Amino acid sequence: MSITKPSIPKGTRDFSPDEMNKRNFIFDTLREIFKKYGYQQIETPAMENLSTLLGKYGEEGDKLLFRILNSGNFLEGFEPDDLASVELNQLSSYICEKGLRYDLTVPFARYVVQNRNEITFPFKRFQIQPVWRADRPQKGRYREFFQCDVDVVGSNSLLNEVELIQIIDEAFNRMNVRTVIKINNRKILSGIAEYIGEPERIVDITIAIDKLEKVGWERVQEELFQRGLAEGAINELKSIVQVLDLNNIEKLDFLEKVLFASESGLTGVKELRTLFEYLEILSIKTPVEIDLTLARGLNYYTGAIFEVKALDVEIGSICGGGRYDNLTGIFGLPDVSGVGISFGADRIFDVLNQLEGYPPDASQSTQVLFVNFGEKEELYCLPLVQKLREKGIKAELFPGNQKMKKQMSYADAKKIPFVAMVGETEMTNGTISLKNMVTGEQAAILFDELILKLSV
Amino acid sequence: MSITKPSIPKGTRDFSPDEMNKRNFIFDTLREIFKKYGYQQIETPAMENLSTLLGKYGEEGDKLLFRILNSGNFLEGFEPDDLASVELNQLSSYICEKGLRYDLTVPFARYVVQNRNEITFPFKRFQIQPVWRADRPQKGRYREFFQCDVDVVGSNSLLNEVELIQIIDEAFNRMNVRTVIKINNRKILSGIAEYIGEPERIVDITIAIDKLEKVGWERVQEELFQRGLAEGAINELKSIVQVLDLNNIEKLDFLEKVLFASESGLTGVKELRTLFEYLEILSIKTPVEIDLTLARGLNYYTGAIFEVKALDVEIGSICGGGRYDNLTGIFGLPDVSGVGISFGADRIFDVLNQLEGYPPDASQSTQVLFVNFGEKEELYCLPLVQKLREKGIKAELFPGNQKMKKQMSYADAKKIPFVAMVGETEMTNGTISLKNMVTGEQAAILFDELILKLSV
Repeated sequence: MSITKPSIPKGTRDFSPDEMNKRNFIFDTLREIFKKYGYQQIETPAMENLSTLLGKYGEEGDKLLFRILNSGNFLEGFEPDDLASVELNQLSSYICEKGLRYDLTVPFARYVVQNRNEITFPFKRFQIQPVWRADRPQKGRYREFFQCDVDVVGSNSLLNEVELIQIIDEAFNRMNVRTVIKINNRKILSGIAEYIGEPERIVDITIAIDKLEKVGWERVQEELFQRGLAEGAINELKSIVQVLDLNNIEKLDFLEKVLFASESGLTGVKELRTLFEYLEILSIKTPVEIDLTLARGLNYYTGAIFEVKALDVEIGSICGGGRYDNLTGIFGLPDVSGVGISFGADRIFDVLNQLEGYPPDASQSTQVLFVNFGEKEELYCLPLVQKLREKGIKAELFPGNQKMKKQMSYADAKKIPFVAMVGETEMTNGTISLKNMVTGEQAAILFDELILKLSV
Repeated sequence: MSITKPSIPKGTRDFSPDEMNKRNFIFDTLREIFKKYGYQQIETPAMENLSTLLGKYGEEGDKLLFRILNSGNFLEGFEPDDLASVELNQLSSYICEKGLRYDLTVPFARYVVQNRNEITFPFKRFQIQPVWRADRPQKGRYREFFQCDVDVVGSNSLLNEVELIQIIDEAFNRMNVRTVIKINNRKILSGIAEYIGEPERIVDITIAIDKLEKVGWERVQEELFQRGLAEGAINELKSIVQVLDLNNIEKLDFLEKVLFASESGLTGVKELRTLFEYLEILSIKTPVEIDLTLARGLNYYTGAIFEVKALDVEIGSICGGGRYDNLTGIFGLPDVSGVGISFGADRIFDVLNQLEGYPPDASQSTQVLFVNFGEKEELYCLPLVQKLREKGIKAELFPGNQKMKKQMSYADAKKIPFVAMVGETEMTNGTISLKNMVTGEQAAILFDELILKLSV
């Protein structure tokens, strides 16, 4: 045969009915919680202008953007000679004006600026949509994946940070995933940079120590050295960042002493103290730990930094975020402070799969299947099935008079718990033979009894 | 300022919280109905290989595909001279391997073939996802829009056609949109082509008469003539297709006589007769009308063809579909018959907006806002708000001690029905001053009373 087997682009996935049920369980849980905290949903287009996306994710990020070829004559006005001399990067900017969104944060910032006159601040929004990155596909990393973002913009209150931790706590408890919430504060990191005498190298420092857990101190030290930090500074950094055997309050006490000369550092310490005070009152179930190496690569964070790790599955972070003071500044609206987190739906999906943490009814679809014995029975059953549906009961009549065995394995495959059989006898008696597909029991019942049985 | 105002690509849209509530009302209604009829949800990636998409939507469709530039060095191995000589079409195929999905039908066919060994047939699936087309943007036509597709594959039974009409009936009744369902059958169209002596011209004929309602008979006639049909044939076609003053059964009687020599034509008539028999039993509320000009452009339909029009809003079709006998054949799996329809969520959204047909609670979000009077009150209120949320009540504590006026207009803008005020007095008395934002009434109540009031 000349037809090749169809496939999908690498790094992308289809989701089967069973997988969709599980994913919807995650999305529905998050959506319900977000709404309970007063967050409102928005959606933005999959395509953004490249001018919106470029330069927002660093040089590496620019390379990972999926660009969309201009439609129509995309080379119009371009001479062959130009083509021969132009650089790749320039050419792609010339022939592509749009790209697929890389995250939900930049489109959100763009949305806020574009709609600033219609929005009432503080604006609490959530957004659940796919994003695309031309990353090298590997286990647990996809080129299309969903982010679930919750952000507040236009409010400096630390109450927002508290609320986000409450949301994390409730979400993972509802999904039965044991986690730890790691927390840090960019102001403390700045304070540390000042303390070690390298206040200008804050970006280099955060990029390097962010990798500490993954690569170990040796390699972080090496990187810092290569980035031009003095040996003395590196050692001082180590002495602070590596203080591991203290609890949260002890860590804050320690930092308050060390950073006494740094205004920024002390503010950071104070912010974290307030946060822990609030959490104390609320008796959060999830452990919250200060982790001074947490920087989350992105250097737009200006205050709190969060990261959530699953305790029983090795998978990296499943949720993270922080406070940013000037996200909308890049689009011309300065001084809008915000704080937000992003749940990684695809990793949470993997975690729940490994823990088998889905509620049992997450895969339940149709409640009863009517067997199709032929035309006469079909005409008899059709209005019955319709009456069930009017009562909100999920019901099917098998399409067509196929072999009994085929109809029963259809019910099996779809995990339908009850099969109703109505043949000559039942039509005469006005009954229904109902088979329980789990126990195998079978009994003749009246239609009204069936309604009662299936109404929950 | 050098920063330009941000914008989004033409033909795309953002959805505000209010719009999202309305759209979710549509999606939730459809999803719930689909499930009640035993359909299961799947999702496919936004990007498909171009080899999957190209050639499936005609020449015009190929041009409307959004193509994604290969990542990395997309011109690798390409010499400047090649560039100078290559044609646009060839170049785009060389530098792009992927495209955005154009509809949900072709990805579904691809999915079925790719997963044929895991799927139990008949496979009843629904899919609600955006699609992208590089169409010229205009009122009511977008470059990114949502389709909501329901299809059964692997079943010839006419019961499926009946069920899809039931779904249409229930969906638009639930949304309070008055509609008419137009129906035709490709086999009847083939019979007519045979009857007028142009059996080979069935595609030309359907493409032309499909436009009848839009452009009138004069122009259809012209097009048929240009497509090479004989004048006699065109006149005969007119005499059949233009029989407008008959009811459905009279039309079928008429066709049965005219098409007596066409096996295909008679089968089509019989199929429609059966359909109307079933609909009679089910007392469908929506009028169903035979429309012989209905062909829906796409020539992959082989049996029933459906289209739904809103009666009170001029907007074209808001739902449509039909039976196809060989959709998966293009991917190497022949003889899988299917039938399906697609709801145009964006047009339905426009219709509901015009009719103001949303249920009043579609825009309701947070149920109660606690005013923030300062740090002490914040600490007092926070656990109260948390208790409400534990009861499933959507509650907010305003983040930060801002001016009362600002906090009240926040409640107004979000349409929050109750505002709770807890200051010195209330903390001492253990009460809450609750203001009804609709009536303006205010009363001191206990916290337990508040819970009762807001629990529904």
